[in-house]
Amino acid sequence: MTRLLYALCGEDKARQFSPHVWKTVLSLAHKGLDYETVPVAFTAIPEIEGGCTKTVPLLRDGDRLVRDSFDIALYLDEAYPDRPSLFGGAGGQAMARFIENWSQSTLHMAITRIAILDIHGMLAPADQAYFRRSREERLGASLEEIAAAGRDEIEAFARKLQPLRNMLKLQPFIGGGSPLFADYIVFGALQWLRLTAGVEVLKNDDPVAEWYGRLLDLHDGLGRNAKVA
Amino acid sequence: MTRLLYALCGEDKARQFSPHVWKTVLSLAHKGLDYETVPVAFTAIPEIEGGCTKTVPLLRDGDRLVRDSFDIALYLDEAYPDRPSLFGGAGGQAMARFIENWSQSTLHMAITRIAILDIHGMLAPADQAYFRRSREERLGASLEEIAAAGRDEIEAFARKLQPLRNMLKLQPFIGGGSPLFADYIVFGALQWLRLTAGVEVLKNDDPVAEWYGRLLDLHDGLGRNAKVA
Repeated sequence: MTRLLYALCGEDKARQFSPHVWKTVLSLAHKGLDYETVPVAFTAIPEIEGGCTKTVPLLRDGDRLVRDSFDIALYLDEAYPDRPSLFGGAGGQAMARFIENWSQSTLHMAITRIAILDIHGMLAPADQAYFRRSREERLGASLEEIAAAGRDEIEAFARKLQPLRNMLKLQPFIGGGSPLFADYIVFGALQWLRLTAGVEVLKNDDPVAEWYGRLLDLHDGLGRNAKVA
Repeated sequence: MTRLLYALCGEDKARQFSPHVWKTVLSLAHKGLDYETVPVAFTAIPEIEGGCTKTVPLLRDGDRLVRDSFDIALYLDEAYPDRPSLFGGAGGQAMARFIENWSQSTLHMAITRIAILDIHGMLAPADQAYFRRSREERLGASLEEIAAAGRDEIEAFARKLQPLRNMLKLQPFIGGGSPLFADYIVFGALQWLRLTAGVEVLKNDDPVAEWYGRLLDLHDGLGRNAKVA
């Protein structure tokens, strides 16, 4: 096996919760490519593959090393053009950048606030110390203060997904009739929330919950079978 | 000339301010298609083309009548496949639906609140009566109450565009290296705001203002030369 996916993990190496890694997990399944997962804790990331990255996912594909979930998706479409496309053409590739930035600026900060103490609780002691220090410095508040702000985010969360909810009246996936990388981008955020805080932010009959359910079911329930706790 | 674009107008027929019509104006220019504009006031819409539509834009192209800016863009790409595509492939077509719903749910309500009295002021008396009645019924408040809520929207408006602002670090248009219909969707909203309330919601050096400027410049300043007052 020459294909390796370096994936963030908790103290329990089977608990893989990074939203960005989940985008790549579904991207690789979409392309029908086998690989081996290498679980990596936060503080171990700088040591992998000779220190070539500060973040995961990192994909090794034979001699190639590719960082960043979007760049990995671009690489996969280029390297495996005969497999199903992740973007559906040049327009889809460009617009997926809008959706990436929408997901990042609308959903990720809210999920960080909601889940920050849960994520901290999943980590080994050395990673907990790193996580606390780096996040408190980045966000200018203690983890506990951030989490307190997170309680308001839970109720407000469903409304942030209104553009997706409205779009789902017209088509079952962001990619249209079937999912594309743009779906995996937003899926990654909701999967991250489910696998860390695990709070219910969507009603069962919410079209967004149904869309998320369809993505959880893909590839024999690849997303649904992820280890929760 | 067999191609007609029915476009919403104020009492001054040269003042065309509908966001949806602007999407179609740029779509037709993108495809390099000539047409004649037929200005229509709100209360005249039910009378055009034998009462076939309750909304504009309505495009007549020879024998074909097409309503709705998105459906018109789809029609144009299908009818004129040799001209530049408005979607850049199937993925772009699907993702433009997300962007349409994002623009609609994030920007349009805010602009309605900001501009509602300005729009009212632009209309002939019969259209003013229709506009007041229909909008007050739809929004459950008087135009004046809605406009009062609009004052807070002005300051909050720039933040709503954060996904676009972040995306612009990576590429000059939502369509990538050049604009696509997805750009015209968001352009339509900002053009609507500029041609009605005319308030400054973006700083000059905001990347979103620069992107809007690039779209105003397209096709010899088609958007920039629109009649403001």
